[in-house]
Amino acid sequence: MTGSGRDYSSRSVNLGPPRSFGTVFKSKLKETFFPDDPFGEFRNEPSGRRCLKTLQYFIPITQWLPKYSLSLFKYDLLAGITIASLAIPSGISYANLAKLPPIIGLYSSFVPPLVYAVFGSSKHLAVGTVAACSLLIAETIGEKASPIDNTELYVSLVFTATLFSGLLQTLLGLLRLGILVDFLAHSTITGFMGGTALLIILQQMKGMLGLKHFTTKTGVVNVLRAIFANRPEWNWKCALIGIIFLIFLQLTRFVKKMKPKLFWVSAMGPMVVVVSGCLLAYFIHAEKHGIATVGHLKKGINQLSIDRWNFDSKYISAPIKAGLITALIALAEGIAIGRSFALQTNDHIDGNKEMIAYGLMNIVGSMTSCYLTTGPFSKTAVNFNSGCKSQMANVVQSLCMLLVLLFLAPLFSYTPQVALSAIIISAMLGLVKYKKAYHLYKTDKFDFVICMSAFFGVSFISMDMGLMISVGLALIRALLYTARPPICKLGNIPNSNLYRDVEQYPGANGIPNFLVLKLGSPIYFSNSTYINERIMRWVRDENDPTILPPHHIEYVLLDMGGVTAIDNTGVESLFEVRRNLECKGIKMILINPRIDVMDKLLVTNFIDKIGKDAVFLSTEDAIDACRFTLQHSKKVDEEGSKL
Amino acid sequence: MTGSGRDYSSRSVNLGPPRSFGTVFKSKLKETFFPDDPFGEFRNEPSGRRCLKTLQYFIPITQWLPKYSLSLFKYDLLAGITIASLAIPSGISYANLAKLPPIIGLYSSFVPPLVYAVFGSSKHLAVGTVAACSLLIAETIGEKASPIDNTELYVSLVFTATLFSGLLQTLLGLLRLGILVDFLAHSTITGFMGGTALLIILQQMKGMLGLKHFTTKTGVVNVLRAIFANRPEWNWKCALIGIIFLIFLQLTRFVKKMKPKLFWVSAMGPMVVVVSGCLLAYFIHAEKHGIATVGHLKKGINQLSIDRWNFDSKYISAPIKAGLITALIALAEGIAIGRSFALQTNDHIDGNKEMIAYGLMNIVGSMTSCYLTTGPFSKTAVNFNSGCKSQMANVVQSLCMLLVLLFLAPLFSYTPQVALSAIIISAMLGLVKYKKAYHLYKTDKFDFVICMSAFFGVSFISMDMGLMISVGLALIRALLYTARPPICKLGNIPNSNLYRDVEQYPGANGIPNFLVLKLGSPIYFSNSTYINERIMRWVRDENDPTILPPHHIEYVLLDMGGVTAIDNTGVESLFEVRRNLECKGIKMILINPRIDVMDKLLVTNFIDKIGKDAVFLSTEDAIDACRFTLQHSKKVDEEGSKL
Repeated sequence: MTGSGRDYSSRSVNLGPPRSFGTVFKSKLKETFFPDDPFGEFRNEPSGRRCLKTLQYFIPITQWLPKYSLSLFKYDLLAGITIASLAIPSGISYANLAKLPPIIGLYSSFVPPLVYAVFGSSKHLAVGTVAACSLLIAETIGEKASPIDNTELYVSLVFTATLFSGLLQTLLGLLRLGILVDFLAHSTITGFMGGTALLIILQQMKGMLGLKHFTTKTGVVNVLRAIFANRPEWNWKCALIGIIFLIFLQLTRFVKKMKPKLFWVSAMGPMVVVVSGCLLAYFIHAEKHGIATVGHLKKGINQLSIDRWNFDSKYISAPIKAGLITALIALAEGIAIGRSFALQTNDHIDGNKEMIAYGLMNIVGSMTSCYLTTGPFSKTAVNFNSGCKSQMANVVQSLCMLLVLLFLAPLFSYTPQVALSAIIISAMLGLVKYKKAYHLYKTDKFDFVICMSAFFGVSFISMDMGLMISVGLALIRALLYTARPPICKLGNIPNSNLYRDVEQYPGANGIPNFLVLKLGSPIYFSNSTYINERIMRWVRDENDPTILPPHHIEYVLLDMGGVTAIDNTGVESLFEVRRNLECKGIKMILINPRIDVMDKLLVTNFIDKIGKDAVFLSTEDAIDACRFTLQHSKKVDEEGSKL
Repeated sequence: MTGSGRDYSSRSVNLGPPRSFGTVFKSKLKETFFPDDPFGEFRNEPSGRRCLKTLQYFIPITQWLPKYSLSLFKYDLLAGITIASLAIPSGISYANLAKLPPIIGLYSSFVPPLVYAVFGSSKHLAVGTVAACSLLIAETIGEKASPIDNTELYVSLVFTATLFSGLLQTLLGLLRLGILVDFLAHSTITGFMGGTALLIILQQMKGMLGLKHFTTKTGVVNVLRAIFANRPEWNWKCALIGIIFLIFLQLTRFVKKMKPKLFWVSAMGPMVVVVSGCLLAYFIHAEKHGIATVGHLKKGINQLSIDRWNFDSKYISAPIKAGLITALIALAEGIAIGRSFALQTNDHIDGNKEMIAYGLMNIVGSMTSCYLTTGPFSKTAVNFNSGCKSQMANVVQSLCMLLVLLFLAPLFSYTPQVALSAIIISAMLGLVKYKKAYHLYKTDKFDFVICMSAFFGVSFISMDMGLMISVGLALIRALLYTARPPICKLGNIPNSNLYRDVEQYPGANGIPNFLVLKLGSPIYFSNSTYINERIMRWVRDENDPTILPPHHIEYVLLDMGGVTAIDNTGVESLFEVRRNLECKGIKMILINPRIDVMDKLLVTNFIDKIGKDAVFLSTEDAIDACRFTLQHSKKVDEEGSKL
C-alpha cells in the first residue's frame, strides 16, 4: 500500500517564497475585524449599485422600508402592541431598580426603539431597558450621588453614563472591535445574570414587605441585614398582595411553558398585574394601608436632556465606569439575542454594525431623557413569538408609548410598588439558571468555576468586581489553553497509513527508531519553553532502559499540522529542540507545517538551516524516506566494515 | 488505493467512555505545574533511596558535594577568582546605579553566592547584581525616599524590597508557578533591556562629564535636559579619562569577539580599569581636578540587616512594587541564562526549583545587607568560559569577596566615578540589541511592536509602565492567536490520499459535493462565534453561483485533528454549526477529534446527538463512507422514480 508507484513530485512540501507581509497582514486584518465579510455581497457590482448597497448596509431601513407592505404591517402591529404592553410595566419596574423616576423608564421605550428601527438590522429585536444594567447603574452612580437626596444630580449622571455607553458602543462598532464582546464567556454571563437576579430578588423584598427604610447598598449580606433590621416595618397586607401577584405571574409563565402557543398569556401577565394593581390601589386607598404606589407620573413626551449632561470632574469617574461596563454587557446581551433569533429565520446579523445601531440609540437616548437600552431577551422573545416581521414592530411600540405618555401616564401613578416588585421577581426567577450551572459542573469544571466566581462575586462583593474576577479567570483559562498545549505520541494504526495518538488509540503501534509527536496550538513565547521540555521528556521516556524492548530513537518527527501560528520565540525554540536532539544524535523532521507557520519558517531561514529534506508532507512520506536513509547508511557501514 | 481490502474495524474512531475527571485533572495539573517531570527519576526506587533523592532534589549541594574532587576544584578555583575580579567593579557600579552605598554592592557578592551554592542547581550560574533591576529599584524606591537626603530610610526600603522579591520568588517556586515567567516574551525582554541600557548610558553621562548636579528622575527627556542644563559643569579631564577607559573596555570586548579563547582579556578589563583608576586618582589627587571618587569604603563583612526592614505603611507600597517587578525580571533573566548554559553541557534545569534557590538567596541577602541578586548574563558567561565545573565557583567568588571586604575594601575608595561610568556604559552597549530588533522587524511585525513598545515605554515613560505595556500587548497577541484561528479548506493532493490546504498547495483538488475544512487551536468562548461564522462563510463562498463549475455541497467535513481543546461554549457552537448547516440541507461530519476534545464531546452528549456515524478517523474514510451513502440514496431515488 505504501511507497510503490507513488508520484512523489506532487507530494513534496510547498517551499515556495513566503507570502508578502502585505498579503498576510491584509488577511489577518480581515479575519480579525471583518470575520463576517460584511462587504462580501458588494463585490462584482457596478459602482452605482455599490453606493446604494453601502447606504443600505449602514442604514438598514433604506433596505427594508421600500419593500414593506401592508400585509407585513398586520403582523408588526400586533407584535408592537404586545411588546408595548410589556414595556410599560417593565419600564417602570427597571427605572425603579435603577433608582430613577419611573417616567424615565417609559421615556426609554419611546425614543430608542425609533432609532433602532432606522439603524438596526435585526428584525426581531425589541428594544427596552434591562434589569442587570439598571442595577449596575444604580450601584455605580449611587456611590457619587444619592438618588433620594440629590435626584437631579443622580439623574444627570445617569444620562451622562448613557452617553458614554453610546459613544463606546459606536466607537467599538466603527473600529470593528466586536471581538471584545467575544471575550465575555457564556459561563461568565450565566453566572453574572444569576448573581444579579439573586441581588434583585432580595432588593425587591423592600417592595414585597412594604418597607420604608432600606439600604442603598447592593450585596447579599447588606440587603439581608436591611430586611431583618427593619422587621417591625413588615406589612402583611403588602406581602399578601405581592405573593398573589407573583403566583399569578408564575402561573402565566407555566402556561407558556406547557403550551408555547399561549405565549401571549405570559406576555400580558405584567400588564394585567399593573392594571389590577392600579384599580386595587385606587379603590382601597392603598396609602392608608401602608401600600406605597409609584406616585406622580406627568403627561407629556421626553424632554431634551443635553443640558443635563454632567462632566464635572468631581463625579465623572462614576458615569464613565458605569457607562463602559454597562455598554459591554448590553452589547453582549443584545447581540447574542439578536443573533440567536436571526438564526431561526436563517438571517445574518453583523455584530459590529449592530454595535453602531446600539450606540446611536443610546446617544440619542441620552439626549432625550432616556437611560441605557438594549435588546432584552424576554421582550425580544415575545416580539418573535408575536410574529413580528421587521423593525416596524419597534416603531409600533414607540407609537403606543407615545400615546401612553400623552394621555395615559397619570393613570399608572396608582401602580403599587408591590406589583412592580412581583413583576421584577417573576422575571428574575427565570434568570437563575441552576440547570445550566449543573450542566457546567458535570461537563467542565473550569467553566463551572468561571460561572460561580461571577455568581458569588456579584452576590457578595459587587457587580463590577464579580464580573471582572470572572472575566479574569476566563482569560487565564484562554491563556492556559495555549501555554500548555497537549503534545501526543503518534503510533501507526494497523493495516493503514494513519498515525494517531497512542493514548487515544491503544491499538496504534510505535515505530522502531522513530518518535512521532503531534504538536498543537500556536507555538509562541508562553509555551515555547514548555514544548521544548516536553519533547525532550518524550525522548527521555522513550529511551528509558526499564521499558522493553529498548529501542534507539534515530528520528523525532514533529507533526505540525495542528500548529496554527508561530512567533520568533517559537522559531528560536524549534532551533533549540533541534540542537538538543542533535546532542543526543537524533535528527528532527517537520511534517506538514501550515501556511502561516511555513511562511515564518522560511522568512527566519529556519528551513534553510534544517535543510529542505527535513520537511515532509505526511508522516508516511517522512518515515519512508528516513527508513531508506537508515538502510542506506547501514549498508555503507557494513561495506565500510568489510573493507 | 482506497477502500479495497482495508480492515475497517481497526480504523474506527475510539468512542469509548471518556476519561474520568480525576485522570484528566491530574494530567492537566501535571502538565501545567510539573511540565519538566521533576520527580520522574524517583519512580521505581525503594523508599529509602527516594528520601535521599528528595533531599538531593531540594538541596542540590547534597548531591554534588560528596562526589566533588580536587581535580574539579582546580577549574572552579580559576573560574571563581575570575568572576570575583568582575564582581568588585560591577558590584560597586551597580550599587551606584541603585543609588546605594557602594559597599552594599560588594556585600551582595559575598552572601548570596554562598546561598546559591547550597540550593541552586545550575553549575554555571554566577550570582551577582544586575543593572536593570538596580535602576528599577532606584526609580521605584526613589519616589518614596531620597537616596541622598535620607539614605538610612532609602537603604532600609531597598532591603525590604529585596525581602519581598525573595518571598515572591520562593512562593512562586513552591507553588510551581514558573509558568508566570513564560509570559515574559523574548521580544519584551529584548526591548526592556535595550530601553534600560539607553537610560543607564544616559545617566552615566553624570559620571563621564563629572557633573555635580543631576536629576533623580529617569526618562530620556529628563536626563537629557539635566545633562544640557548643567553644561557649565562639564569637566573635560573627566570626559577624557572616561573615553580612554571606554575605548580600552570596548577593545577588550573586541578581542574576545575575534578570539573567543581570549575571553579573560575582556573579563579582566573592568578590574584593570578600576585598579588603574585608583592608582591615577591616588597619584594625581583626583579631587583637585574635580574628578569624583567613590569615597569611604569601610572594612568588615556584611552586617545583619533584619532590624532595618521597614514595613511602615507610609512607604510600604514602593518596596512591594519594586520587589515584585524586580523579582519577576530577575527570575526571567536568571532562569533563561541558567537554562541556556545548561543546554550546552546537556544538563537540565528545573525552573521552579531554581526559583526557590533565588528566593532563599534574596531572603538571606535582605537579612545581611545585600540587595537583589540573580544570575547576570555577562558574569555567567565568564564563569562558563573560565571552565567552571560546579556551584563551587560561587563559593570561591564568595571567599574572594570575603578577603576583599576584610582587607582590601578601603583601597577601592579611590575608584573614580568616571571609571565606574565607563564600565557600566561598556556593559550596557552590549545590551542594545539593534540587530535582534531588526531581525524582529524583518520576520514578525507584531513581535517588533511588542519589543519597541517596551523600548520606548521604558525610555520615555517609566520602566514599570514600559514593561507593563509590552506585556499587555504580548498577552493580547496570545489571546488573538486563538480568538481568530485560521480555518482552511482542504483539497486532495493528486495521486494520494492526502488532504491539504488549497491555498498552500494550489495543486490540491476540491472534492465535488464535499467541503473539507481544517480547524485549529482550541475552540472556546472567544472564538466560537467566529468559527461558526467562518464555516458558514466558506459554505456561502462555495455555493457562490458566479464560481464555475457550480457544485452543490452535501457534506461539510471538519478536520478536528488540530483542535487541542474545547469548552462548553465551543460545544454549543458546534451544535449551532450543525443546526445552520442542516437548514441548508448539509450534513456535518467530524474527523479525528483528539482525546481531550473527544472526552468533552462524549460527556456533553454531542456524539450521541450527531450520531456515531458522523465521526471518522480520517478524511479519506469519511469521504468514502459519505460517497457510498450518496450513491446509495441516488440509486434509491432512481429506483423510486422508476416505480
